[in-house]
Amino acid sequence: MEETVRIVVDAMGGDNAPTEIVKGAVAAVNGRSDIHVILTGQKDTVERELAKYQYPRGSIEVVHASQVIETAEPPVAAIRTKKDSSIVVGLMMVRRGEADAFVSAGSTGAVLVGGQAIVGRIKGIERPALAPLIPTKNGFSLLIDCGANVDARSSHLVQFAKMGSVYMENVLGIKDPRVGIVNIGAEEEKGNALVKETFPLLKECEDLNFIGSVEARDIPDGVCDVIVCEAFVGNVILKLYEGVAGTLVSAIKAGMMSDLRSKIGALLVKPALKKTMKSFDATEYGGAPLLGLKGLVVKSHGSSKAIEVEHSIYQCVQFKKQAINDQIAEHILLSDK
Amino acid sequence: MEETVRIVVDAMGGDNAPTEIVKGAVAAVNGRSDIHVILTGQKDTVERELAKYQYPRGSIEVVHASQVIETAEPPVAAIRTKKDSSIVVGLMMVRRGEADAFVSAGSTGAVLVGGQAIVGRIKGIERPALAPLIPTKNGFSLLIDCGANVDARSSHLVQFAKMGSVYMENVLGIKDPRVGIVNIGAEEEKGNALVKETFPLLKECEDLNFIGSVEARDIPDGVCDVIVCEAFVGNVILKLYEGVAGTLVSAIKAGMMSDLRSKIGALLVKPALKKTMKSFDATEYGGAPLLGLKGLVVKSHGSSKAIEVEHSIYQCVQFKKQAINDQIAEHILLSDK
Repeated sequence: MEETVRIVVDAMGGDNAPTEIVKGAVAAVNGRSDIHVILTGQKDTVERELAKYQYPRGSIEVVHASQVIETAEPPVAAIRTKKDSSIVVGLMMVRRGEADAFVSAGSTGAVLVGGQAIVGRIKGIERPALAPLIPTKNGFSLLIDCGANVDARSSHLVQFAKMGSVYMENVLGIKDPRVGIVNIGAEEEKGNALVKETFPLLKECEDLNFIGSVEARDIPDGVCDVIVCEAFVGNVILKLYEGVAGTLVSAIKAGMMSDLRSKIGALLVKPALKKTMKSFDATEYGGAPLLGLKGLVVKSHGSSKAIEVEHSIYQCVQFKKQAINDQIAEHILLSDK
Repeated sequence: MEETVRIVVDAMGGDNAPTEIVKGAVAAVNGRSDIHVILTGQKDTVERELAKYQYPRGSIEVVHASQVIETAEPPVAAIRTKKDSSIVVGLMMVRRGEADAFVSAGSTGAVLVGGQAIVGRIKGIERPALAPLIPTKNGFSLLIDCGANVDARSSHLVQFAKMGSVYMENVLGIKDPRVGIVNIGAEEEKGNALVKETFPLLKECEDLNFIGSVEARDIPDGVCDVIVCEAFVGNVILKLYEGVAGTLVSAIKAGMMSDLRSKIGALLVKPALKKTMKSFDATEYGGAPLLGLKGLVVKSHGSSKAIEVEHSIYQCVQFKKQAINDQIAEHILLSDK
C-alpha cells in the first residue's frame, strides 16, 4: 500500500488565513490520494471554511488550537507562552511523531524558534537553516541560510551547503547541484573573515559540487543551484530581490501609462509581461524548508494564497518520500569521520 | 576671481579608456569655466585623443604615466610596484596638493588601496568608505560602505553615517538627510552583533537624522537618503541591484518578443520603457566618492562613458566648493568631545 504522508497545516497563519489556507489544503488532498492533512486552529472557524468544499472523507482532520501567534509578537515569548497556539500545537504533533511535516504561513520568527525548540535538530546539525527558493533567469536557486542564525560560524555554513545540496538533488531533482558561496569577488583570497574561513572547508568536501565564490550580481543569472551565505546576508538578498523587482515593475507599469502610444502598447504586451512576472515570482515554488530538524517544517510566504499552500504540502510529500532527513544525517555523519 | 578646481582624471582606467574618458574631460571643461583637468596616462595616446576636440586652451593638461594597472591585478601589489601608473601618478598629485580631486574608472581595488595609502585619511577617520548612489523610486540613496573595509566595527559605521550625511546634504542638496542602518527587521532588538552594537550609537548622534533600521526590501522605495552598512553587505546590495534589474529587464524584453501581438506592443512602449530604465541606471549619478580621505577620490563605474566621466568631474567641483572634507572633519571632531 501507498505510504500516506501526514502534514499539519497552520490554518491561522498568514495574511490570508484561514480562507486561503483551508482552500489550499483541500486542493492538496483532492490532488493526491497519499496525503492526510491536519489543520490546526480555531475549530469552529476552520470547520466553517471546510464546509464549503468537497474532499475525500477522512483526508482532512481539524485539531483545535485556541490561540493565534501574531506576526509582530516577539517569537521566543510567543512560543513559550502560547502553548495552545496553532503553531505550537502543530509543531508538537511533529515532535510526537503524529505528523511528518508542518506548514505555516505565519510568523517566520515563531516558526524558526518553535521548530528548533519543539521539533529539535537532527543529531550532528549545529543549526537549522531556512532555505527559500529564489527565481533566476532559467529556473531557481536555493538560498541558504535566510533564517535567524545571525553571526554564523564556518562550520554552520558547511552544513548549510550539504543540506542545501541534498535538498536540491532529491526534492527538486537537480543532478549534482552547483554550490557557491556569496562573496564580494570571484577570487579565493577575497571576502570577509567568515567567507575566507569557509571557502577552503567547502573546497575539501568531496560530497559537494563546489564551484567557488558567487557575486551577488550573478545570482539572478542562475550561476549556481545552492547559494550559501550567513543569515544576515541571505535576508538582505531575499528581501532586496523582492524590493528591486517590485519597484522596477511598478516603475515600468507607470512608465507605460505615461502617454497614449504607450498605453496602447501596454495593452498588447500585458499577457506576455504577466507571464514573465510569474516566472520571477518566488511564491510559485512553495515554501521555504527549515532544514536540519528531525521533522520537516516549511515556512510558506506570509501572503500565501491557496496555490502556494498546496505546493508547500506537495513539497512535504516529496521531502518525506525521498527520506531527505536520513540523507542529511548521513552526509553530516560522513563528514564527521 | 572664481576658484578653479583642479581634477586629475585617470585617462587609462575603465572599459572605455582612453576614448570616453578624454571625451568626458573635454565635455567638462567646455561645460564649466572653473575646472582644470589633468589627464594622467600614456602621453602619446592621450594627446592623440585630445587632438579630436576643441576646448579652452590651458584647461586640460596631460601628465605622462607609462604604466597601467589592470582590473584583475591584486591591488596592494599593483599600487606598490607600478609607481608610474596613471592611478599612482594621479593620486600622488592629490597628495602633494597639486590637485584637489582624482577620478578613475579603473580598478576599484587599486583606487581604494591607493587612496588610503597615498592620499591618506582625514585625522580622526578610522576608515574611508566607498559610497555610490543607488537609484530608488523617486531619486537615489547613498549606500555607504561598499568599499574594501570588510569586518568593520561599530565605530566605523557611525563615521560612515556622518560622512554620508554631510555628503548628501552638501553635495546633493538633500536637507536633513534620513539615515538608516541595514537590518533584517524593523525592531531595535533585531540584527547581528554589529548592528545591535551600532544602533544605539547612531541613536545618540545629535547631528544625524537617524530613522532606525531599514529592511533591504524597502531600499528601492527610497525610505532613507543614507543607507549605512558594512562593506560586505553593501557590496551584495549594490551588485544584486544591478543583477536583478538587468535580468528582469532582459526577461521582460524577451517576453515581449514571444508573439506578434507583444512585438507590436513592444514597439509602442519602447520609448517609455527606455525612459524608465534610464531613471533606474545608477551610472547617471556620477561616480562613487571614497569619503574620509584628505583629498577627494571618486571611483567611476568601470563601464563609464563620457557622460559619467563628465558628471564625476562636476561632482568633484561641488565637493571642493562645499568644503566637504572640512565639514566631515568638524563632525568627527565634534563627536570625539
